[in-house]
Amino acid sequence: MQCARAWRPLSPLLSTRIYQTAWNRSQSSPAAGRLNLSGIYPPIATPFTTKEDVDYQKLKENLQKYARIPFKGLVVQGSNGEYPYLTEEERVEVVRMVRQSLPGEKLLMAGSGCESTRATVELTGRMAAAGADAVLVVTPCFYRGKMDSRALIHHFTKVADSSPVPVVLYSVPANTGLELPLDTVLELSHHPNILGLKDSGGDITRIGLIVHKTKTQDFQVLAGSAGFLMAAYCLGAVGGVCALANVLGQELCELERLCLSGSWEEARLLQQRLIEPNAAVTRKLGVPALKQAMEWFGFHGGACRSPLQRLTEAETQQLKQDFTTNGWL
Amino acid sequence: MQCARAWRPLSPLLSTRIYQTAWNRSQSSPAAGRLNLSGIYPPIATPFTTKEDVDYQKLKENLQKYARIPFKGLVVQGSNGEYPYLTEEERVEVVRMVRQSLPGEKLLMAGSGCESTRATVELTGRMAAAGADAVLVVTPCFYRGKMDSRALIHHFTKVADSSPVPVVLYSVPANTGLELPLDTVLELSHHPNILGLKDSGGDITRIGLIVHKTKTQDFQVLAGSAGFLMAAYCLGAVGGVCALANVLGQELCELERLCLSGSWEEARLLQQRLIEPNAAVTRKLGVPALKQAMEWFGFHGGACRSPLQRLTEAETQQLKQDFTTNGWL
Amino acid sequence: MQCARAWRPLSPLLSTRIYQTAWNRSQSSPAAGRLNLSGIYPPIATPFTTKEDVDYQKLKENLQKYARIPFKGLVVQGSNGEYPYLTEEERVEVVRMVRQSLPGEKLLMAGSGCESTRATVELTGRMAAAGADAVLVVTPCFYRGKMDSRALIHHFTKVADSSPVPVVLYSVPANTGLELPLDTVLELSHHPNILGLKDSGGDITRIGLIVHKTKTQDFQVLAGSAGFLMAAYCLGAVGGVCALANVLGQELCELERLCLSGSWEEARLLQQRLIEPNAAVTRKLGVPALKQAMEWFGFHGGACRSPLQRLTEAETQQLKQDFTTNGWL
Amino acid sequence: MQCARAWRPLSPLLSTRIYQTAWNRSQSSPAAGRLNLSGIYPPIATPFTTKEDVDYQKLKENLQKYARIPFKGLVVQGSNGEYPYLTEEERVEVVRMVRQSLPGEKLLMAGSGCESTRATVELTGRMAAAGADAVLVVTPCFYRGKMDSRALIHHFTKVADSSPVPVVLYSVPANTGLELPLDTVLELSHHPNILGLKDSGGDITRIGLIVHKTKTQDFQVLAGSAGFLMAAYCLGAVGGVCALANVLGQELCELERLCLSGSWEEARLLQQRLIEPNAAVTRKLGVPALKQAMEWFGFHGGACRSPLQRLTEAETQQLKQDFTTNGWL
Repeated sequence: MQCARAWRPLSPLLSTRIYQTAWNRSQSSPAAGRLNLSGIYPPIATPFTTKEDVDYQKLKENLQKYARIPFKGLVVQGSNGEYPYLTEEERVEVVRMVRQSLPGEKLLMAGSGCESTRATVELTGRMAAAGADAVLVVTPCFYRGKMDSRALIHHFTKVADSSPVPVVLYSVPANTGLELPLDTVLELSHHPNILGLKDSGGDITRIGLIVHKTKTQDFQVLAGSAGFLMAAYCLGAVGGVCALANVLGQELCELERLCLSGSWEEARLLQQRLIEPNAAVTRKLGVPALKQAMEWFGFHGGACRSPLQRLTEAETQQLKQDFTTNGWL
Repeated sequence: MQCARAWRPLSPLLSTRIYQTAWNRSQSSPAAGRLNLSGIYPPIATPFTTKEDVDYQKLKENLQKYARIPFKGLVVQGSNGEYPYLTEEERVEVVRMVRQSLPGEKLLMAGSGCESTRATVELTGRMAAAGADAVLVVTPCFYRGKMDSRALIHHFTKVADSSPVPVVLYSVPANTGLELPLDTVLELSHHPNILGLKDSGGDITRIGLIVHKTKTQDFQVLAGSAGFLMAAYCLGAVGGVCALANVLGQELCELERLCLSGSWEEARLLQQRLIEPNAAVTRKLGVPALKQAMEWFGFHGGACRSPLQRLTEAETQQLKQDFTTNGWL
Repeated sequence: MQCARAWRPLSPLLSTRIYQTAWNRSQSSPAAGRLNLSGIYPPIATPFTTKEDVDYQKLKENLQKYARIPFKGLVVQGSNGEYPYLTEEERVEVVRMVRQSLPGEKLLMAGSGCESTRATVELTGRMAAAGADAVLVVTPCFYRGKMDSRALIHHFTKVADSSPVPVVLYSVPANTGLELPLDTVLELSHHPNILGLKDSGGDITRIGLIVHKTKTQDFQVLAGSAGFLMAAYCLGAVGGVCALANVLGQELCELERLCLSGSWEEARLLQQRLIEPNAAVTRKLGVPALKQAMEWFGFHGGACRSPLQRLTEAETQQLKQDFTTNGWL
Repeated sequence: MQCARAWRPLSPLLSTRIYQTAWNRSQSSPAAGRLNLSGIYPPIATPFTTKEDVDYQKLKENLQKYARIPFKGLVVQGSNGEYPYLTEEERVEVVRMVRQSLPGEKLLMAGSGCESTRATVELTGRMAAAGADAVLVVTPCFYRGKMDSRALIHHFTKVADSSPVPVVLYSVPANTGLELPLDTVLELSHHPNILGLKDSGGDITRIGLIVHKTKTQDFQVLAGSAGFLMAAYCLGAVGGVCALANVLGQELCELERLCLSGSWEEARLLQQRLIEPNAAVTRKLGVPALKQAMEWFGFHGGACRSPLQRLTEAETQQLKQDFTTNGWL
C-alpha cells in the first residue's frame, strides 16, 4: 500500500512533498501561528454494506450533505467512526477518501491513536500523508492501571515529536475507562505540536480549569459531546466534536452562533432541547442509535460492525421518543 | 428536650403556632406562590471547641460576619456542617440558634435527612419548629443497592407530605454513593411541597435536563458546588449552595451578579479562578480544608469532630497554594 | 484489663456489675487469652410490627428457633438488622433483650459503629452494659474521601481504647462504599482490644493475606457472607457472619463442620448450592429478600422499615427460584 | 466437526495440513471427548530488544527453562504478553515460534481476541494455523456500554462457530473494564466448541457458581491469577493461567499438586506466601514488574513496549520487598 511504504517516521527520506501539502493546508502561514480549531465538527460515522464492508459510496453521499452545513471540519475515526473495528488499512483509506471529498477550507482531524506508541507514531504519519490536517490521539488504555502521567506524557510526547501535523489530545473515559489526568494535560500543553484537547468526559469544572491554566499556551479545548457544549463555551472552550452533529449538525452550528454572539437565553433553550437526543445517541444507546437517527434525518447510517448490534425494537422506540419529545421529529 | 416532646408528626396536636410562624415567614403571602430560593447560600460549617463540643459562640461570630454578605440565606446541617457527627439534639439546637441570629429576611434551609423515613419525618418537623424556612433532605444511602426510584419516591413523598415547610431534595453522590435518579427527581417535582433540588453531582447535562423537564412545575435547581456555579446559571439553575461561600462568600455573590446581568466574560474569569480553591475545600481535602481556609479569611473554622482529622502540613501547603495561585491569598 | 478500666460510662446509671458480667462471660479465664470467635453467626434481622415498631415478641420467637442451631453466637445490629434505621435507644434495647434470651454460652456480638468517634465510643459502652460480649464496629463512611488510614486508625484506636469488651472491625464496602484498607487492618491488629475482622467484601485474596500477615497476633477473620465461606475457611478464616444463616443456619453450620473436618468434596457441593440463595438475600435483593425468605423457612421476617420496600411480585419470584433451583424449597 | 469445516481460512496459503495437525493434537481421539485443560499455564511475557522489537531468541531461551516445569501448557498472547502492543503479524509469528519450541504434549493456548468479530474470526483461524491447540478470546470492550449479553453471545458464537480449535472465554475486567456476565457464560457454555473460561476477576463466588451451573456441560474454569488459585481449586476450577507462573512456575505447580492431593494445610501456607508477589506483578505494578521479577529468577524479562514504562527505583524496591518478605528472594 503506497502511503504505508511512503511514510517513514523521523526519517530523512520522508516525502517532503506529501507532508508539505498537509502542512501547508493546516498552517497556510507559519507566521500566523497555530491551526485554529474553533468550531463544530461531526465525528463522522462509518457506513457499512450488508456484508460489513466499508461503504465508501454511502460515506461520500453523507459528506455531500455535510458540505452544506457550516462545520469547521470533520473528525474521521473518532469513537463514533467505529475505528477499533477497522483495520489500519481501512482507517487510512477512509481518511484519504474523506480528504478527496472535503472542500479545501474544511479541517480534517483524523483519529490515529493505537495502544502502543510505535503503532500510534506510524499511523499518525500515515494519516498525515492521507491528508489529515491534524490528528486526534486517544489515551491508550488496556493497561490502564499503568497509564500514569509518566507513561502518558512519554506516549503523547513521542507521538507529537514525530507527527507531521498538529496533535489534539483525546480523553474519552466512557470508552477507555481512563481520564487523561489534569496535570498530564497541562504538561503536554507546552509541547509545540500539541494543539489542544477534545474532552468527552463532561466534567465542566475540569474544562474550565484547563482553559484557565493554559491561558498562556494558546491551548484549544473542544467539548467532546453536545450535552455540555453550551456550558463548555461558557467556560472558554472553542468548539465541539459532537456525535449528534451527524444528525442535527445545523442545529449545533446554530448553538455555536448563539453562544459566540452572547445570545445566552436562546442558546439555553436550544441547548436544553439537545440534551436528551444527545444522550440517546451516545451514553444511553451508542453508535447503533446514532446510525439509526441518521437514517431518520436523511443520512446513511445503517448497521454497525459486529459485535455492535442493531437496536432492539424497544430501544428504537426509546430513541425516537428522545427526539420527538424535544421537537426534532 | 422541649421541642422533641412538643412535635408530633401528622398529629392533630401539632402546635399550630410554631409551624405557622415558620410557614408565615417562608410564604409571607400564600397567594404569591412558592418560596423563592434563588441566590447564594453557604452551607455553614460547625465550629467545635477543643473538646469537640459545638462552639455556639464562635458560630454566632461567624454568622455576624456572614450577615454583611448578600447571601439569600444559609444552609444549616449540609454535608459541610458535619451533620452526621452531630446528635439529633445538636442538629436541632444549631438550627434554633442560627435562626435567632439570622435577619428575618434571610432564608434558613436546614438539613433534616436521616436514613429512615420515620426519623426524617420527625427531624423535619423539629427543624421547622426550630425555625427552618425549608428543609434539605439528603438521599438515604446505607442500603444503596435497594434505593431505587420506588423506595426514594416513597421516602421523599412521605417526608414532603408531613413537612410543615417546603422540602428541597439533596443529591450528593460524593458522600452518599448514590445519585438521585433523574426520573425520581422529575416525579417528585410534581409534589406541591417539594420545591427544588440541590445537586452536588456536578453533571451539568443533568442540571440542564432537569431544568428543561420541570419548566412547568416551577422547580428550582441549586448548584451544589462553586466549581460549576456559572455553568449551572447558564443552564437555568437559580442559585447555589456552595461550601466555598464559607470562605469567599462575597466573591460568589459577585459571580451570581455577573451571571444574572449577562456579564459572561467577567463571570468566566472569576469562575475560573474559583475552581481550584473550591476543589481544594471539597473534593480534594474536604471539610478540614474548608475550616482551615475559613481561618485564613477571618472566620472561625477550627478542628472537625473525629474521625475527621486536621490537615497534615503537606495538605495545608497544597491548600494554600490552591488559593494563592489564583490570587486569593 | 487496662482499656476496660480506662473507659468511663457516660451515664451514672450504668452499673459496674453489668460490665463485670459481660467481661466475665466473654473471657471466663483471663489466662486463657483472647475471646475465641470461631464459628457461625447469623446477623439477626429485626422484625417490625405493621406500624414499623420493633416487634420484640417476634424477635424472641426467632431466637428460640435459633437456639436449636449450633451457632457460636449471634450478631445483633449488623447491616441486616437495619441498624441505621433504629434509634440509639432501640439499638441498645434490642441487644439487651437478645442477651436475656440467649443461652449464656453463646456469644453476643453487637454492632456499635456510628459516624463520629464520640458517638461510637458512647454506644460501645452502652452495648457492653447491655450484655454484648464483643462489639462489631463498622467503618465510618459519610466523608469517605477523608477516611484514610490516619483517620481510621485514630477512630478504631479510640474506640478500642475505651471499650469494655473486645472490638471486631467490620468492613462492608457494599454498604459503606469504603473498604477498610489492608495496611489499616494490619496496624490495628496489634491493638490488644481489637480481636478480629468481619470482612464482607468478598476478596478472598485479601482475606488470605490478612490471615497470613497477622499470624503472630492471633487476629481472627470472619467471612462476612455465605458466598465465600468455604473459600475463607480454606484460606484461614475462623468462621462467618452470614445473612443467610438467618434462613439456612443449620446448613451453614454443616458447611463449617465439613470444612473443619477436611471433607472438602462434600463441602464444595454444599457451598455451591448456597451461592445463589445467598446472593439473592444480600447483594441482589437485600434485607427485604432476607426477611421474605425467613418467612418461608419458619422464622418471622416481615416488612422492613421505610424507605426499604417489600419485594415486588417479580422479585419474590426471582428469590423463590434462587432457593428452588438449588433444592432448598 | 461442523464448525471447523465451516471455517474458511482467509488466505489461500493456509494449508489444510496445518489445521489438521492442530486438530489432531488437541483432540487425539474424538471419541474421548473434549480437550482437557486442567493444569497450570504461564501466560508468557514477550521479551523485546532495546529497539522494542520482539526478541525471539530470548523468548526461545525462556521456553527452554519453562520446559523443565510441569506446566500443562502455555498461554501465548494473554494480557501479560502485551498483545495489544503487537501487530497481528507479530501475534501470529510469536505463536508459530512457540509451537515449534514446545514439546508436543504441552498445550498451546493462543489469545486471538480483537475488538471486532470479523477480526477475531480471522485471527482465530490464523492462530490455529500457527499451531494453537485452543484460543483464548477476550471480551471486546471499547464500546463497553453496548457489550450486553446479546452482543457478547453473538460475538463469541460467531467466533466459536468458525474456529478450527476449541475456544476458551476470557474475562479480565481489570483490563477491559467489563466482566463477561454470568448469564452470558452459562449460555455460551452450551456451545460445542466453547470449552471453558479463564476468569481473572477474582470473585470466588462467581467461579463457584459457574462450576455449579455448568456441571452437565463439562465446562472448564481456569483461575486467571495466582492470588485466588487455591480458593478456585477449592470451588471446582481445574487449573490456572497465572502471570506469576512466569516467575514462580514450579511453586504454582506444587500448589496445584497440594490442592489435588487434598493437602490443604500445606496448600494454604504456600498460597498465602504467593499472594503478595502475585499482586505485585499484576494489579499493583503490572507487566513491567512481572518482567523485572523474571530477571531476578533467571528468565529474560526486560523492558516493555512503550507506553508501558520501566519501574521506577521506588517501585522496584517495593516489588523486591513483596518477594523477600514472603521468602522468595
